[in-house]
Amino acid sequence: MENKEQLEHIRHTLAHLTAQAALEYYPNAKLTLGPSIDNGFYYDIDFGNEKISDEELVKFQSSMVKNLPSWTGFTHKEISKEEALSLFAGNVYKEELVNEIATRGEKITVYTCGGFTDLCRGGHSENPSKEIKPGSFKLDRVAGAYWRGDEKNKMLTRVYGLAFDTKEELDAYIFQQEEAKKRDHRKIGKEQKLFTISDLVGAGLPLLQPNGMILRKEIEDYLWDLHKNKGYSRVWTPHITKQSLYETSGHAAKFGNELFRVKGGDEEFFMKPMNCPHHMQIFADNQFSYRDMPVRYFEPATVYRYEKAGQLSGLTRVRAITQDDGHLFCRVSQIGEEVSTIVSIIKSFYTTMGMLNGYWVRLSVRGDDKSKYLGSDEVWEKAETALEKAAKENELNYKIGRDEAAFYGPKLDFMFKDAIGREWQLATIQCDFNLPERFELEFVNEKGEKERPVVIHRAISGSLERFMGVMIEHFAGAFPLWLSPIQVVVVPIGESQKEYAEEVYNKLKTSDVRIKLDDSNESLGKRIRNAKIQKVPYVIVIGDKEKEAGVITVEARTEKLEGITTEAFLEKIQKEIKEKTLN
Amino acid sequence: MENKEQLEHIRHTLAHLTAQAALEYYPNAKLTLGPSIDNGFYYDIDFGNEKISDEELVKFQSSMVKNLPSWTGFTHKEISKEEALSLFAGNVYKEELVNEIATRGEKITVYTCGGFTDLCRGGHSENPSKEIKPGSFKLDRVAGAYWRGDEKNKMLTRVYGLAFDTKEELDAYIFQQEEAKKRDHRKIGKEQKLFTISDLVGAGLPLLQPNGMILRKEIEDYLWDLHKNKGYSRVWTPHITKQSLYETSGHAAKFGNELFRVKGGDEEFFMKPMNCPHHMQIFADNQFSYRDMPVRYFEPATVYRYEKAGQLSGLTRVRAITQDDGHLFCRVSQIGEEVSTIVSIIKSFYTTMGMLNGYWVRLSVRGDDKSKYLGSDEVWEKAETALEKAAKENELNYKIGRDEAAFYGPKLDFMFKDAIGREWQLATIQCDFNLPERFELEFVNEKGEKERPVVIHRAISGSLERFMGVMIEHFAGAFPLWLSPIQVVVVPIGESQKEYAEEVYNKLKTSDVRIKLDDSNESLGKRIRNAKIQKVPYVIVIGDKEKEAGVITVEARTEKLEGITTEAFLEKIQKEIKEKTLN
Repeated sequence: MENKEQLEHIRHTLAHLTAQAALEYYPNAKLTLGPSIDNGFYYDIDFGNEKISDEELVKFQSSMVKNLPSWTGFTHKEISKEEALSLFAGNVYKEELVNEIATRGEKITVYTCGGFTDLCRGGHSENPSKEIKPGSFKLDRVAGAYWRGDEKNKMLTRVYGLAFDTKEELDAYIFQQEEAKKRDHRKIGKEQKLFTISDLVGAGLPLLQPNGMILRKEIEDYLWDLHKNKGYSRVWTPHITKQSLYETSGHAAKFGNELFRVKGGDEEFFMKPMNCPHHMQIFADNQFSYRDMPVRYFEPATVYRYEKAGQLSGLTRVRAITQDDGHLFCRVSQIGEEVSTIVSIIKSFYTTMGMLNGYWVRLSVRGDDKSKYLGSDEVWEKAETALEKAAKENELNYKIGRDEAAFYGPKLDFMFKDAIGREWQLATIQCDFNLPERFELEFVNEKGEKERPVVIHRAISGSLERFMGVMIEHFAGAFPLWLSPIQVVVVPIGESQKEYAEEVYNKLKTSDVRIKLDDSNESLGKRIRNAKIQKVPYVIVIGDKEKEAGVITVEARTEKLEGITTEAFLEKIQKEIKEKTLN
Repeated sequence: MENKEQLEHIRHTLAHLTAQAALEYYPNAKLTLGPSIDNGFYYDIDFGNEKISDEELVKFQSSMVKNLPSWTGFTHKEISKEEALSLFAGNVYKEELVNEIATRGEKITVYTCGGFTDLCRGGHSENPSKEIKPGSFKLDRVAGAYWRGDEKNKMLTRVYGLAFDTKEELDAYIFQQEEAKKRDHRKIGKEQKLFTISDLVGAGLPLLQPNGMILRKEIEDYLWDLHKNKGYSRVWTPHITKQSLYETSGHAAKFGNELFRVKGGDEEFFMKPMNCPHHMQIFADNQFSYRDMPVRYFEPATVYRYEKAGQLSGLTRVRAITQDDGHLFCRVSQIGEEVSTIVSIIKSFYTTMGMLNGYWVRLSVRGDDKSKYLGSDEVWEKAETALEKAAKENELNYKIGRDEAAFYGPKLDFMFKDAIGREWQLATIQCDFNLPERFELEFVNEKGEKERPVVIHRAISGSLERFMGVMIEHFAGAFPLWLSPIQVVVVPIGESQKEYAEEVYNKLKTSDVRIKLDDSNESLGKRIRNAKIQKVPYVIVIGDKEKEAGVITVEARTEKLEGITTEAFLEKIQKEIKEKTLN
């Protein structure tokens, strides 16, 4: 049995154990369903008029710990519909389930362990008392849940539990969750005034405040810096298009309800859900020869996808998605070198962001059923080989994802871990034989013949909105100096140091340091605290001592620089900014 | 009589003179209508089956010149409907007009001059033979035109004529037109591969090719450079919004059919036709004090307005409009200083573009009917006074435009002349008391009270698409070095200079010069010609002489630099780029 399946069995077993504990305290409670989920399990229970609190969960948990040693193995038997209805008499939920199973003509089974019996299809630990490690599970919280997810039905109490293979894993998960809560980009976004979700504009359509725009522009400019000397050209395309573009590209059918439909007068348009078809049109308006290949376009462009309102959240689930998009048009023989260049850009970028450690790459190739994929075997083999060769040459930590390719070609998806160990799928490199075909793209080769190029889709950060959300949480708002919306705050202790503080402020300001002077009437402590809440990397405090000596004292995040000159400080931070130091 | 009215009379008189000449050659032609227009006049004539060519126009014109001396004054008389119908018997067009005039109960008048009589309401020169100067008019071209502009009607021949006060003015106009044709940004756009209009994407939605994007990015970056040290912050807002934003702002009613309507699932949105309401939301999500004022936002953002397909053209009439938009939130007392800053930015920008000479400004203020305008007299007086004071202090060449203010406040509109004398309304500065009211914007003043800010809307280039179109025509594609998509082309004479040419190319390339090496198989002459057609500012030609001496020869647009070192050339062009020299 695989480890993953074993863990699922443990989680499902724990749902039974929870139900038993709940019935100890609430014998009249009606059990419904209790499956395993991603991080543990839940059980939906109808407690009648009783409100279940967190204290209750502590009691349930202690019963579970007490009962576990007697859970040494499950027995099960098949019973008739009548027996089942009699066994669960008075529980309308189980009755409904029993009737449904019978109607489908399936077997009705009940499983028993530790004296507790439940309607169940199986999938448990063989010996829970041994397999479930002490401290490896925890009842987490309660939430309301409609019976079978239908809001017309009764609201039940869902008891959530966390469960992992070991106590260490559970503890790590809980720590990660707590850390994630503290770092929530929506919370930090408000504290640092990074972005605004406006009721009048709508959910999923964040507006970037000046501080958020500094963050975004720094990331965007850095991305362009990494591309501009590698043969890329910037292009620009509008946010809407006539339907005909997506009929040609096939997106009209593929994106369906995710597309925003636009009407101007009687004419119909779509908002673009991706930039590729637009870029095909830019390529198509040229007569390129093999000497011009590869042609490389870069455009950080906002695309629009309609996601349901309930799924939207902060910057990470949005309807306006700014991709750091790029498309390369090249020959099959050029795929390898181009991928190497993109990989080197990805490595530089994520090293700078402090996320390269522990990354891995999924090389998604065709599976056995080749009918799902477009293009000849020969071309696929070339492309897959080229991608794998590039993966090896670039010493990528890659795993093959069989049957996970896009229908138009194989791809490399990059997974990065953030500071608290969460994994994010961010960068991607994809080979495409489909769009060049559909748009009949061509260049003239050495023999004077028309040849069809391959298209490589690539994104380094993925979506700037989501990436900003990830960065806010990765850095917990304490951005490296080059990304910090405010880099330095100058705080004079009192009125008599104000003039000197202004002098220091102006010196740094004219050197393009993002600096604020806080000479407001708040107390010194309050002003320093304010700057620290804003996670400003450097706070310059100016007292009489500094004024007389013509120096400054700087409180950094982890150090204190005393009595240095403004010039020396400027030199230090300019170096940090230029080198994009992680600090 | 004003000069303008006099010129209109001359033009209208010339339409009569044209009709008389046409009848000399085509006695059976049927006259219809012949008004004066912007640059002259036209007459719509039904020539039956006859095709009228340009040669015909030469004949007509010579008759007009011959007939003019006898045109010494108009006589007119009122006639009855019956008399009129008999006079124009057989001409269905005049009959239709006569019947309509009679139905409206208006007088029917005919005007006669030089022996030619036409149905007319008057408005002619008193003595055409004296007032119409020799050589001041010219029959220009013919075009098809449906009777009364309705395509269900018969197609007539429209004879266009140009007419000005003097021969000099006519000549200048013709020269300007010919120059404009040569400089047509759609033509140069193709030659220099600046942008693409795709049938699949749609008219009015240009896609910027790499060369066009270089031009746009240089302009955009320069605009930001002019703002960033003047207290402006960049913001970013999405391209769509829920309807509620425009219900609050009033744009839903104001823009009507010009708005693109968007649907995602069952939810309805608008594409933004301007950025102001979005920026109001960014301001509103802060608690500002008087110490924070003015607050200044800058966003070069694309807005969408639905214009009829027939009105779209190249970059100048588009549906996707990227405004270099900005909004200031300030106190009434701060208007003056803020306007001065904006004016200084406008002056710098248009000096750099070589367009500041001959500019003028319209200060648009309220008229007598104050009911059309929002806001109290006191606030208007303050704002108008502040704008006029700023206009004076900044030595603007301004004229008052009474009753030309926006309903929400007074404004300054800047008119600039391009290289061939055409006037373009580009920059604008507008005061707004309306939106802050509608969005209930506030900050806390010195007394701890809530105070409402004024909003200043400002755009320097207006729209980047239109401005690019204007720049392409203004420079006739020969952009100053800093704007040139390709700044330098290196052309080795033959194979043996190739290596040295590459060395020169690499030296300049690594210094971020936008450079191409043309070592293709074309002849030397062809390669130099290609670069000149592309209006590349500097062409480096490398022969044996250069190779041996380790120097280069540079053909610039107006000079030739012989035997200079690559380093010296680099220094020269880096200075030109940095200083944005007009060359």
